[in-house]
Amino acid sequence: MASIKNGRALFNEIPSAYPEPGKTTVYDESETIDPETVPLNGGFIVKTLVLSVDPYLRGKMREASAKSYSASFEKGKPLYNYGVGVVLRSENSAVKVGDHVYGVFPFQKFFIRPSLEGVRILENKEKLPWSTYLGAAGMPGQTAFFAWKEYSQSKKGDIVFVTAGAGPVGSLVIQIAKSEGLKVIASAGSEEKLDFIRSLGADVVFNYKTTKTADVLEKEGPIDIYWDNVGGESLDAALKYANHKARFLECGMISDYNEKAPPVTNLVQIVAKELKISGFLVFSLAPKHIEWFYNEIPGRIANGELKILEDFKKGLEYGGHAIEDVQRGRNYGKSVIVVAEE
Amino acid sequence: MASIKNGRALFNEIPSAYPEPGKTTVYDESETIDPETVPLNGGFIVKTLVLSVDPYLRGKMREASAKSYSASFEKGKPLYNYGVGVVLRSENSAVKVGDHVYGVFPFQKFFIRPSLEGVRILENKEKLPWSTYLGAAGMPGQTAFFAWKEYSQSKKGDIVFVTAGAGPVGSLVIQIAKSEGLKVIASAGSEEKLDFIRSLGADVVFNYKTTKTADVLEKEGPIDIYWDNVGGESLDAALKYANHKARFLECGMISDYNEKAPPVTNLVQIVAKELKISGFLVFSLAPKHIEWFYNEIPGRIANGELKILEDFKKGLEYGGHAIEDVQRGRNYGKSVIVVAEE
Repeated sequence: MASIKNGRALFNEIPSAYPEPGKTTVYDESETIDPETVPLNGGFIVKTLVLSVDPYLRGKMREASAKSYSASFEKGKPLYNYGVGVVLRSENSAVKVGDHVYGVFPFQKFFIRPSLEGVRILENKEKLPWSTYLGAAGMPGQTAFFAWKEYSQSKKGDIVFVTAGAGPVGSLVIQIAKSEGLKVIASAGSEEKLDFIRSLGADVVFNYKTTKTADVLEKEGPIDIYWDNVGGESLDAALKYANHKARFLECGMISDYNEKAPPVTNLVQIVAKELKISGFLVFSLAPKHIEWFYNEIPGRIANGELKILEDFKKGLEYGGHAIEDVQRGRNYGKSVIVVAEE
Repeated sequence: MASIKNGRALFNEIPSAYPEPGKTTVYDESETIDPETVPLNGGFIVKTLVLSVDPYLRGKMREASAKSYSASFEKGKPLYNYGVGVVLRSENSAVKVGDHVYGVFPFQKFFIRPSLEGVRILENKEKLPWSTYLGAAGMPGQTAFFAWKEYSQSKKGDIVFVTAGAGPVGSLVIQIAKSEGLKVIASAGSEEKLDFIRSLGADVVFNYKTTKTADVLEKEGPIDIYWDNVGGESLDAALKYANHKARFLECGMISDYNEKAPPVTNLVQIVAKELKISGFLVFSLAPKHIEWFYNEIPGRIANGELKILEDFKKGLEYGGHAIEDVQRGRNYGKSVIVVAEE
């Protein structure tokens, strides 16, 4: 094989509001690679198959000087996030040609890894599509299961409110809560998404763009568990209609990432209702639960016990579009960039 | 003894902003009582000595229809809060004349209790002034100790930020944190209060009215523990300058009780920093810790290990003034109404 283009999606400039493909991110084909001959220096070369697009990536599009839990993207360098790829060649005895690997990978068609650090070889005895290891069987699924175990303190009779209920995290939270027999209220931003949420068994489903969250919670609450992916108005309504000693699981606040979220006016309820609010990152919870997760969850997806929904964008050149769509809530299920077929 | 006036401080009308004596609350002498002959029906009669004025009372000045953790005051009825009184006569074998009792009492010079329910007989072998059982040896002291035990997760090297540091709760939190060797940043609203806070050993002391909280925390933080009595701007700065996995102890948000608190704009840090925010009420934590508290704390106050500061208002007719002062932060230490000498 001769040298071929090694397409990359690069971080180009910090957005002031929503990320824009071609501006915030650019697709670049200036580099070439010969996967058959490129020196590996003891490592292995991976052909990227699928890449994950997640809401948290917006937080990495900032000045490098602004500290946060995850580093900022570097201008002119590839974006990176969870991905699955296949090993084409290897000089590492622990990695075989044809192995499928999962980790935080560059948005790049081919790349070389010096070692298995930060990389998991996926056994996939359940024969799931590789994309599923980016969603329900990957980081978002881990987020839902780990945090529910750690912070929900769920008990019989609890009422649960889940935002972004059609997303990869929210849709699993709904299913976990329903498997425990709890009443679930769930919101999303389109009729199509509401249909999916209904199919998961949620008891009360509403479009937050056409129905006020506070009105729904006033009627269907008070809520005992709030799963927050949104912040802003949803959080404010949840504070107002929380039950005494409710638990708030703070997974994300996407309403605040690209524009100024509406003010939250009911914070005094934290005191009055003795609320327990837990912010969390999946990375922190992983050491305790990760092996349980990989032993348990892929099988429950494969046998249909857990329903999933994935939204594919074909071609790395559309990576920037997928990123914008997720920030705007235009994706219908877990957003995945299909970089290459196997 | 003939009938005498039984002065009462009544709740009169719901304030729209700060409570106003003579309007929100009125002093009334229309009722009379003869303590020597009034029928007790198996109960006991108490002469009120001291009554406590606490920030949370503002929350009880609302429409009865607005639910909250504690009932609203009733218009035309006496205010009520923690107090200490002396028993003048008793038909209850468990209560002796001369016993000193502590409980939630009406703002009234004399009152009859049918039983000991909700009342604690104070042994006071340490001979503390009775007022101290309303502050450091009472509900505010319990608040500080119980919540610190439950939620601070304090560890060596932690930096602690305490708001309303000259108040009965904040001043004890500062002393607890210093007794554990932690660095303490504390705020208050007057130079006089700052002097008191310095005397408790706080490392960094500032007047939030003349210095921006955010500037202090930027320089002296990041903070690991935030004790919130204030909400609003202090909470917002604490979110911004919190350390990863900081704990927020939400005791009160007085900046939100009488006027609209400034918006809190850094809520997304709850997720990014994996903060744990715990709202609490002393009532909920009492069963677990209350006996430890009465065995331990009065002695530590009596021997000077714990420093306290009390602000006396003499005469129940000034009860409404004391209430307004506490909401405006004009009290210098624990606010106590001295209703009668013994």
